[in-house]
Amino acid sequence: MSRVYCEVGVSLDGFIAGPNRGPKNPLGDGGIRIHEWAFRTTAFLERIGLTGGETSQDDEIVKAGFARAGAYVMGRRMFDEGEVGWPEKPPFQAPVFVLTHSGREPWVRKGGTTFTFVTDSIESALNQAKKAANGKDVRLAGGANIIQQFIKAGLIDGLRIHHSPVLLGEGVRLFEHLGADALKLEKIEVIDSPLVTHIKYRVTR
Amino acid sequence: MSRVYCEVGVSLDGFIAGPNRGPKNPLGDGGIRIHEWAFRTTAFLERIGLTGGETSQDDEIVKAGFARAGAYVMGRRMFDEGEVGWPEKPPFQAPVFVLTHSGREPWVRKGGTTFTFVTDSIESALNQAKKAANGKDVRLAGGANIIQQFIKAGLIDGLRIHHSPVLLGEGVRLFEHLGADALKLEKIEVIDSPLVTHIKYRVTR
Repeated sequence: MSRVYCEVGVSLDGFIAGPNRGPKNPLGDGGIRIHEWAFRTTAFLERIGLTGGETSQDDEIVKAGFARAGAYVMGRRMFDEGEVGWPEKPPFQAPVFVLTHSGREPWVRKGGTTFTFVTDSIESALNQAKKAANGKDVRLAGGANIIQQFIKAGLIDGLRIHHSPVLLGEGVRLFEHLGADALKLEKIEVIDSPLVTHIKYRVTR
Repeated sequence: MSRVYCEVGVSLDGFIAGPNRGPKNPLGDGGIRIHEWAFRTTAFLERIGLTGGETSQDDEIVKAGFARAGAYVMGRRMFDEGEVGWPEKPPFQAPVFVLTHSGREPWVRKGGTTFTFVTDSIESALNQAKKAANGKDVRLAGGANIIQQFIKAGLIDGLRIHHSPVLLGEGVRLFEHLGADALKLEKIEVIDSPLVTHIKYRVTR
């Protein structure tokens, strides 16, 4: 059965993006510093149509994070920010279900990425994604709001946090608005890379 | 020369204590979960006058964190919370300089711990602590407020964060009120223990 997972880079002070983010500034002020390690990898560059980059354990982790996904669920703000920036062949190369309040026809892109807009509920988006994933797993692409909705609804099975040793000071927090005890986690793997520490957590409740 | 360091347990959502903390609830609601790994160690139990506990790499880390300190700097809230709970022989066994707005005579306890109350400035507390440390390092005991003051003043050299895979939802955040780019860090060591991941950072600016 499809598992639901999320892999996301977080600053030491808990942000996944800086302040003032929007379509013209998708990671917010300074947010690029959280993800620098990923942007150097061959696997990431390949996904956005570029060559070069480094092969390293970071590269393996990026590669595996994409490979596992049979489909994605994404929030509307992340889509709006990406729509203007992603190349013709977006990095997902799989069906993406975008949660939004205003419907829109599916948007078919090159390389296997089709954005389907879901207006009813996160459960509906997840069910469609699971069906489309065809036995593979469903990756929560982000942003923070949709991840929080999934956590609160108990719909997430695993998390890999890329802990980055930078402080942003302000921005978009990954864990917020969750109340006490939203998630019980077990740490299952730590990988120490020069620029980042990858920690994998299993959701136990 | 004395270096200034801080070792502190932090939840995955960035808290060092839960909500509703005070002298009767020093770690706040649920805050004990962040520090569970430490409370199991022989070194910690020994410091509060108990026997037993586990010898492990966690134990070595607790032991080293205390051994390195020739003196401590502490905030007033942490002192108030500890004053009612610490045993006759408090865990510090070294001079402790407490920053406070209201002065008080030094409080001499058993085992080498003397609390000295400093009312003028963090710089003054630090200078007194450095002198008292007699060549050893100065440990910032906490809480969050005093750590943030030291970070903002550029007075901290190193941090060891014990990253705990728990979510508290609310409480006292370690990194807050700092503004952008308060601290530039380099990750220098990662130690993976079953209940916690110890990451050591050097302050590079």
